[in-house]
Amino acid sequence: MIMSSTHMSLLPRFVNQVLRGSLFSSGVKIRKLVSLDGATKTTDCLRRRRVHTNSRNASHVELTSVRNPGLKRGPYATITDEDIEEFNKIIPGQVITDPSELSGYNTDWLKSCRGSSKVLLRPKSTNEVSAILRYCNQRRLAVVPQGGNTGLVGGSVPVFDEIILSTQLMNKIISVDDISGALVCQAGCVLQTLTDHVSEFGLIMPLDLGAKGSCHIGGNVATNAGGVRLLRYGSLHGSVLGIEAVLADGKIIDCLTTLRKDNTGYDLKQLFIGSEGTLGVVTAVSILCPSKPTSVNVAFLGCNTFQDILSIYKESKNNLAEILSAFEFLDASSMSVVTDNLKLTNPIASSPFYVLIETGGSNGTHDEETLNVFLQRVMELGLVKDGTIATELKKITHIWSIRDGMAEGLMRDGYCYKYDVSLPQSHFYKLVEDMRARLGDRVLRVLGYGHVGDGNLHLNVTTRHFDQDVVDMIEPFVYDWVARYRGSISAEHGIGFKKRNVIFYSKSQEAVSLMADLKNIVDPNRILNPYKLFPDQQ
Amino acid sequence: MIMSSTHMSLLPRFVNQVLRGSLFSSGVKIRKLVSLDGATKTTDCLRRRRVHTNSRNASHVELTSVRNPGLKRGPYATITDEDIEEFNKIIPGQVITDPSELSGYNTDWLKSCRGSSKVLLRPKSTNEVSAILRYCNQRRLAVVPQGGNTGLVGGSVPVFDEIILSTQLMNKIISVDDISGALVCQAGCVLQTLTDHVSEFGLIMPLDLGAKGSCHIGGNVATNAGGVRLLRYGSLHGSVLGIEAVLADGKIIDCLTTLRKDNTGYDLKQLFIGSEGTLGVVTAVSILCPSKPTSVNVAFLGCNTFQDILSIYKESKNNLAEILSAFEFLDASSMSVVTDNLKLTNPIASSPFYVLIETGGSNGTHDEETLNVFLQRVMELGLVKDGTIATELKKITHIWSIRDGMAEGLMRDGYCYKYDVSLPQSHFYKLVEDMRARLGDRVLRVLGYGHVGDGNLHLNVTTRHFDQDVVDMIEPFVYDWVARYRGSISAEHGIGFKKRNVIFYSKSQEAVSLMADLKNIVDPNRILNPYKLFPDQQ
Repeated sequence: MIMSSTHMSLLPRFVNQVLRGSLFSSGVKIRKLVSLDGATKTTDCLRRRRVHTNSRNASHVELTSVRNPGLKRGPYATITDEDIEEFNKIIPGQVITDPSELSGYNTDWLKSCRGSSKVLLRPKSTNEVSAILRYCNQRRLAVVPQGGNTGLVGGSVPVFDEIILSTQLMNKIISVDDISGALVCQAGCVLQTLTDHVSEFGLIMPLDLGAKGSCHIGGNVATNAGGVRLLRYGSLHGSVLGIEAVLADGKIIDCLTTLRKDNTGYDLKQLFIGSEGTLGVVTAVSILCPSKPTSVNVAFLGCNTFQDILSIYKESKNNLAEILSAFEFLDASSMSVVTDNLKLTNPIASSPFYVLIETGGSNGTHDEETLNVFLQRVMELGLVKDGTIATELKKITHIWSIRDGMAEGLMRDGYCYKYDVSLPQSHFYKLVEDMRARLGDRVLRVLGYGHVGDGNLHLNVTTRHFDQDVVDMIEPFVYDWVARYRGSISAEHGIGFKKRNVIFYSKSQEAVSLMADLKNIVDPNRILNPYKLFPDQQ
Repeated sequence: MIMSSTHMSLLPRFVNQVLRGSLFSSGVKIRKLVSLDGATKTTDCLRRRRVHTNSRNASHVELTSVRNPGLKRGPYATITDEDIEEFNKIIPGQVITDPSELSGYNTDWLKSCRGSSKVLLRPKSTNEVSAILRYCNQRRLAVVPQGGNTGLVGGSVPVFDEIILSTQLMNKIISVDDISGALVCQAGCVLQTLTDHVSEFGLIMPLDLGAKGSCHIGGNVATNAGGVRLLRYGSLHGSVLGIEAVLADGKIIDCLTTLRKDNTGYDLKQLFIGSEGTLGVVTAVSILCPSKPTSVNVAFLGCNTFQDILSIYKESKNNLAEILSAFEFLDASSMSVVTDNLKLTNPIASSPFYVLIETGGSNGTHDEETLNVFLQRVMELGLVKDGTIATELKKITHIWSIRDGMAEGLMRDGYCYKYDVSLPQSHFYKLVEDMRARLGDRVLRVLGYGHVGDGNLHLNVTTRHFDQDVVDMIEPFVYDWVARYRGSISAEHGIGFKKRNVIFYSKSQEAVSLMADLKNIVDPNRILNPYKLFPDQQ
């Protein structure tokens, strides 16, 4: 469709480029995803690791046991000097008891949960994990497995004095098969390290998330992490090929196959994906890595309404089809978080809503043409207020840093109340509007961003300091709202400690009861990650 | 690369077309996958349903209990007139006891297993399934759930007199969301019916297999069916969004969500995917359907060695990348099965090996160009002996009918010994060669075909009639061979009845023991699909 010149003046800034056919001719083409990742990850890595190095800050966080006075410690043994001695025999030099060193490991990244563990164990091998758990099970010592400690529901830190079992030293990459795409590695490998490594074989990790600079692949698997690539590559239930896990009694379940197909009995590895460390400790994983796209493009668009974003999504499914690799949205309040708190600049004109679209393919010319045609179409449909296409590394990195910086930016408001829900796309944003109306000026911000394609909204509320009255205004209102539309009250963050008593908003009594049966057969003494995932009365 | 005219005479027939640049200009472009599917599916449907309509044939099959004299019937109740009366109250008019009607349901499609069930129950709703199972559990009546009865390991037919619980009348399509791609339907929907239905919404089913004309989606999910699209769209563990299942005691587990993400507790639906009806009866499913490619191309190539096929596969991953949708191979003996027994014609010159490559994308011109470049490359590398590109519907259908007709063609030899294994690609075909050398002229054929990209080989041996001596020459040789390379002794067919005692070749004692624990908590009376999946001593 040829557009008349009278229309052109009303169109966003890149339209003229599109019409002139010069949209992609001036910029540097970004052909390697790894260069796109680079800068963001390094910053991100530093961000995520802060919690471990700033223990003074951590010790100011209220103890979880104090904030939840009704919660009783389970019937577990208390650690003794003899226990420490025994651990030192199993993993000499890898037992940490110095309180200042422990502080970061006792506190979650959001600084919303703090335990009082007296010991951190850092095994290097599956056999060491097995020996530790066998001992703990015999002694009835409770254990919390911990990866990069980047979880957002308090699942990876102790509630009371559970022993912290860290995968930090289990960071060996075992093998990469560049034909099949199978990566095998220990559970403590950092996601970004794996991304960099498989990149050398022309592969990418099937998952990508804000915490990639410090989250561990074992933790990703144990929490069934989602992230921005799920839209393209699916969930870990599909891409994890094999798992090695250690049960509470020390038994090693070796399903660490690299086979793409294996229908010999129940697919046991699925049990551990998303079980949040309550069924076993994941010690090694095998993951199917897709071929790395050689051509990557990013578009960042501003829209007037959320409905426009849904229309753009539908168009992107039809027009970008197999090269669509990410479709993320944020609202104006989300943008203000990163501009106010992280001093990032909004690359386009202020809009009520923004959408970030990434394509990844194997043919640069085709991908650019396809994106071009798609953008022309959504502009012609009047769905776009303003927009830009990132063709230079710096600009691509900047655009992704807006999306990736959300969690960090929110933390700088003071305290952040996080809700991570799945909803039918048609009702997706109404929850943010209703919550905003409900909370009014009692809070700093109410905002929404997330993964449109997955129906996954991150609803966030911030205040200067933690305020139980605000919690009481949000909950159970938010859960009732989500349950009304048969949504999920935790799309990707999991249940952990914080959501344990609201699981019934998304799961039936029969389902939770079956989960408890499963827990009971593999961990009858309930030593693994107690007070997590299951409601208090279960 | 420009090739000299002296080389051109040595190249396969389509090279000249490629060099002339006219490869795609003369034929009709196939832009709709549904037209590609049509013809094959109809034939296939008739084929697969034969077993139910030809009961005389079925009654000639030796009873499983006779063929396995050492196997003892479990401690189950025997069905009485009162039971039949009770079933008639639960599902009036849907209880079949006529032996001639039952015959087909008692016998597997391969005519290798036959039970002697006296009753077939055909519920229409989940509540009916629940009431039936509750009653059977109380009475200790054993039950075999049955979908389209197209399984290849004897998993869907009774071993003794188990009640047959068919999903045949549970064939309602509940909803299709054309934006998210979520299809919700009852378990008894035929895969081809679903493919046709979602096609109207611009979607395709994420799985496709030879039995699509009569297999049920509930059976597909219960057996974690693989098929030719797994390479592109992954396994059902990734694409099934939700499951409703009924446990042995009649309890309904409702995880029938359409959400793409839901991390509220353990992902219970995964338990039922691939559990072969031993943990519960799948009554409804929700599946994520990808957008239907608007452009489909098929290439059929002949090669001299299996190594050439592996090299072509590697090239296809790099060059066809995101549009590669199937990569299937067959050997010369496989080709002879369909030419001898089904009177299909080989579309290219006789070759030791053949490969079928399908692309599916959203941009016809781009896909054709990409395929063209890829073919030029593999020809220049000397990997292709002869080949053809299917651009007309008739030819595409014909090429797929060669691959899809394998199972049917093999049956016409008389008796077929089927082995469905996963192996590292480098050792993939050596097993066929070793088996051929081992069996010599004692058998009609030894052949291999399958899914190269998934490392999944279908090794088949045929004789005129069943011969235990042949079985004894094949087994355990084949299992030892596969175990040596840490392969899977059942890549996609499952364990069922036939492979139950060889599960340890692929799974550890710890893993099978954990499976038994799982079975025990949901079906303590072991009424669901007994004698299947677990080894006799478990």
